[in-house]
Amino acid sequence: MAWLRPRWPRCAALRWRPGGAAWAPQPGKAPGAAPRGPWLPHGGRGLRTASPGLGEVPLTSERYRVRRLPFSRLSPQDVAFFQRLLPGRALTEPAALEPCNVDWLRSVRGCSTLLLKPQTTAEVSQVLRYCSERNLAVNPQGGNTGLVGGSVPVFDEIILSTVLMNRIISFDTVSGILVCQAGCILERLNEYLEQQGFIMPLDLGAKGSCHIGGNVATNAGGLRLLRYGSLRGTVLGLEVVLADGTVLDCLASLRKDNTGYDLKQLFIGSEGTLGVITAVSILCPQKPKAVNLAFLGCQNFSQVLETFTTCRAMLGEILSAYEFMDEKCMELVEKHLKLSCPVRDSHFYVLIETSGSNSTHDEEKLNSFLEQAMTSGLVTDGTVATDDKKIKMLWSLRERITEALTHDGCVYKYDISLPVGKLYDLVTDMRARLGQSAKNVVGYGHLGDGNLHLNITAESYSHSLLDAIEPFVYEWTARYNGSISAEHGLGFKKKQFIQYSKPSEAIFLMQRFKAMLDPKGILNPYKTLPSSS
Amino acid sequence: MAWLRPRWPRCAALRWRPGGAAWAPQPGKAPGAAPRGPWLPHGGRGLRTASPGLGEVPLTSERYRVRRLPFSRLSPQDVAFFQRLLPGRALTEPAALEPCNVDWLRSVRGCSTLLLKPQTTAEVSQVLRYCSERNLAVNPQGGNTGLVGGSVPVFDEIILSTVLMNRIISFDTVSGILVCQAGCILERLNEYLEQQGFIMPLDLGAKGSCHIGGNVATNAGGLRLLRYGSLRGTVLGLEVVLADGTVLDCLASLRKDNTGYDLKQLFIGSEGTLGVITAVSILCPQKPKAVNLAFLGCQNFSQVLETFTTCRAMLGEILSAYEFMDEKCMELVEKHLKLSCPVRDSHFYVLIETSGSNSTHDEEKLNSFLEQAMTSGLVTDGTVATDDKKIKMLWSLRERITEALTHDGCVYKYDISLPVGKLYDLVTDMRARLGQSAKNVVGYGHLGDGNLHLNITAESYSHSLLDAIEPFVYEWTARYNGSISAEHGLGFKKKQFIQYSKPSEAIFLMQRFKAMLDPKGILNPYKTLPSSS
Repeated sequence: MAWLRPRWPRCAALRWRPGGAAWAPQPGKAPGAAPRGPWLPHGGRGLRTASPGLGEVPLTSERYRVRRLPFSRLSPQDVAFFQRLLPGRALTEPAALEPCNVDWLRSVRGCSTLLLKPQTTAEVSQVLRYCSERNLAVNPQGGNTGLVGGSVPVFDEIILSTVLMNRIISFDTVSGILVCQAGCILERLNEYLEQQGFIMPLDLGAKGSCHIGGNVATNAGGLRLLRYGSLRGTVLGLEVVLADGTVLDCLASLRKDNTGYDLKQLFIGSEGTLGVITAVSILCPQKPKAVNLAFLGCQNFSQVLETFTTCRAMLGEILSAYEFMDEKCMELVEKHLKLSCPVRDSHFYVLIETSGSNSTHDEEKLNSFLEQAMTSGLVTDGTVATDDKKIKMLWSLRERITEALTHDGCVYKYDISLPVGKLYDLVTDMRARLGQSAKNVVGYGHLGDGNLHLNITAESYSHSLLDAIEPFVYEWTARYNGSISAEHGLGFKKKQFIQYSKPSEAIFLMQRFKAMLDPKGILNPYKTLPSSS
Repeated sequence: MAWLRPRWPRCAALRWRPGGAAWAPQPGKAPGAAPRGPWLPHGGRGLRTASPGLGEVPLTSERYRVRRLPFSRLSPQDVAFFQRLLPGRALTEPAALEPCNVDWLRSVRGCSTLLLKPQTTAEVSQVLRYCSERNLAVNPQGGNTGLVGGSVPVFDEIILSTVLMNRIISFDTVSGILVCQAGCILERLNEYLEQQGFIMPLDLGAKGSCHIGGNVATNAGGLRLLRYGSLRGTVLGLEVVLADGTVLDCLASLRKDNTGYDLKQLFIGSEGTLGVITAVSILCPQKPKAVNLAFLGCQNFSQVLETFTTCRAMLGEILSAYEFMDEKCMELVEKHLKLSCPVRDSHFYVLIETSGSNSTHDEEKLNSFLEQAMTSGLVTDGTVATDDKKIKMLWSLRERITEALTHDGCVYKYDISLPVGKLYDLVTDMRARLGQSAKNVVGYGHLGDGNLHLNITAESYSHSLLDAIEPFVYEWTARYNGSISAEHGLGFKKKQFIQYSKPSEAIFLMQRFKAMLDPKGILNPYKTLPSSS
């Protein structure tokens, strides 16, 4: 059983860092100036990456021909007020504003002229009270790592950054409950917790930049959801400032609390449109003592599914990730990033991670499963890793797919939830539909969560290609009761497609909640919901 | 290490069945006719059990002097409409209504004259549309196993029972997602799932009677929360009928869906005041292949806490329950139910359950922990069980405490969340405060979830005893940022105490949500929230 031995070639264990060198645009491969004009009727079809240099990112307002809502314009008196309120932390310098006006995919750009960096909840409250009275629009911003244009202004909204709200308030080692300000960076929190034998219940490629407040505001999913569940279960409390400046203190640090409606849930995943999250209370699992990883090859998607049900049954409580990628993904990772896959000649690749409290037991379980998977012919080749370095190397094959895609040309990105049995049919159907008009149609994602990342690349942007993809991809998803946004949210780019996943009664109700909580609509306007008019 | 061997004396493995023989009132010990009058200013202080026979339960309207809101009175024309809509399922016979008008604790009683048993969502929608137009109040009812008077009418509200909505809609063995109607009984669902290798993610003493819709409407906690998390994470979708009859179909069966606000969360735990849950989609874990149970004795509460942190670290992912009870609980269980405890002479008892996929591994982990706990002196005595019968017997020591308490006289029940370190201090303080005026002051509960069940018994009801308990117990809880209702909800009996656990801004917002979703207030009136006037 040679395949059970770790046999990994050398490879740098890089992590996804938005804005980092790995993401530098590729001149010559970029699609050039982004398309604009009336042929983008929905205000944002097709999430395209590998855009041109900073100065060249077109203004969202021009690119998408969206109309500015009648908010007040920022006056010198307003700026003076904020500079008095936040001395040295109300910035108007273009150099300070530039990175906050553009998303990290470099696909949308606002033209805000004021960046506020409050440190306390009271300051956020004062900012919003003032903005509400003055009818000034506000764009709450965390680490600005979002993928749907939700984290940057569309026009001149004031940017309210949580970057200086990075204080850990408390951690209880008996209960595992962490309370911290919204601007804490996910990776810093995890490092802090690891010193005490705990970890954050979520992990994302963007962890080096993203803020926990932004994670909660977008209900981030990521790599640990299969094991530790969604933020809707692990977030125990929130402190939120409403549009009018009211501070809603629901920052309980209790596992159970059935006193009235669970208001915090409304703010989880609301993308800053209902309130600004200023602090988070979250239940953190213990740091696993043993982590193992298996990277396997399967010949067809049925085997990928059967391998999943088999490993879930045999690994049980120690299964912590089940990711898959197709051979096209692997080709791109090898071609563009020069990574080398230790498993060869498979149509699908599967990454299985176990996390447990006893390395001997975990390895026994994993080996039993692998033997079963091999002898039954589910898996044709594979490798395992138990040490940190090799685990990271194997993870990078999966985590760096997004990066490899940006090197392949213009990328159309879709983040779909589907019943697992149907997951790959969308890729197959899309591939057949697009034929030679696409360069590559690839599928990968969090199979254990029913989450497919469908990506389509082409040498350059093409209107007809987009028309061939949309609304087909959304209609296909709706036909199987899937979600057109599993974990990325709707933001600016997908808000018009919500009806493919939610009935009109639900959308209407959401609009009523928005109108109730933010009657002037100043919080993150143009995002999440289609306009109610 | 004799204490590691199972050594359990024979004992019937009874389960809590509301309304069952085990709960028969004890004449002679009952507090007699319930107190009424102006000395119950909050409309429901003190949850008293062991009430008199069915006919003797006083009407809530008289007992609590609550004022009927100006809903319409049911007319013969109304009854005729419902009998046409639900032939044979719109009941007016007193015999049919009697058990639905009284809660199973026999502490509150309404005087409804109409019981509706819809079978479909469309029927529920038609019922509510009619009631909304006619301004008729409605009391949604599941298994009627609630503990805070939320599940029975206060006056003459129409009882809308989910008893005939008991259809399993689908179960996906790959994803483990179950979709079913709201009236399915929890235990039946679990039995159905077990045949397919899965279990429900929640388990309650009342499982033989309670409906899954009621569980979700009350955000039930129970015995598996430590392992599988709360319903806020496991419930994936809901179908809800709003007060005006609108059907809100958010019945997604997807693990991830970030398209807009998560409306279903508002209905989870809203106790039927915002809408009637008609169907549920829920993520079910695999059935564990091995279950072990250890019943241990500790000499003080610090040891109970340290035993918890030790076993959480050593048992890790297989720990599925950590329950505790004090010696007073054990005395009552032995005295009133003639159960015998295999572990002697301890001030505290701890029940630890493991659930895992490999019995050998699990037993190894458990034995390592037990050795560690014994050698370090955390635990002074104990027994373990691995077979079903003995496991049930040991569980009954914990599960039947509530029953034993009803035999001890008049019971004042409190369901409190606190930081675990503070959990037992409330019992100690209360015992010192009450002195000889109480018969017994006992504490037990889900320690792993920070959930204390504080119970106080007395020979008979006493106004001065209640005054000594309340609001002290709520003030004490608020001082440590606890919750005055961890899992029971607020219902009718605790709605006036919400301000001890929620700030006024939050209560105000809840009232606005209620007013928006149910402007006439017809859904489960007099419950959950204090009146907004």
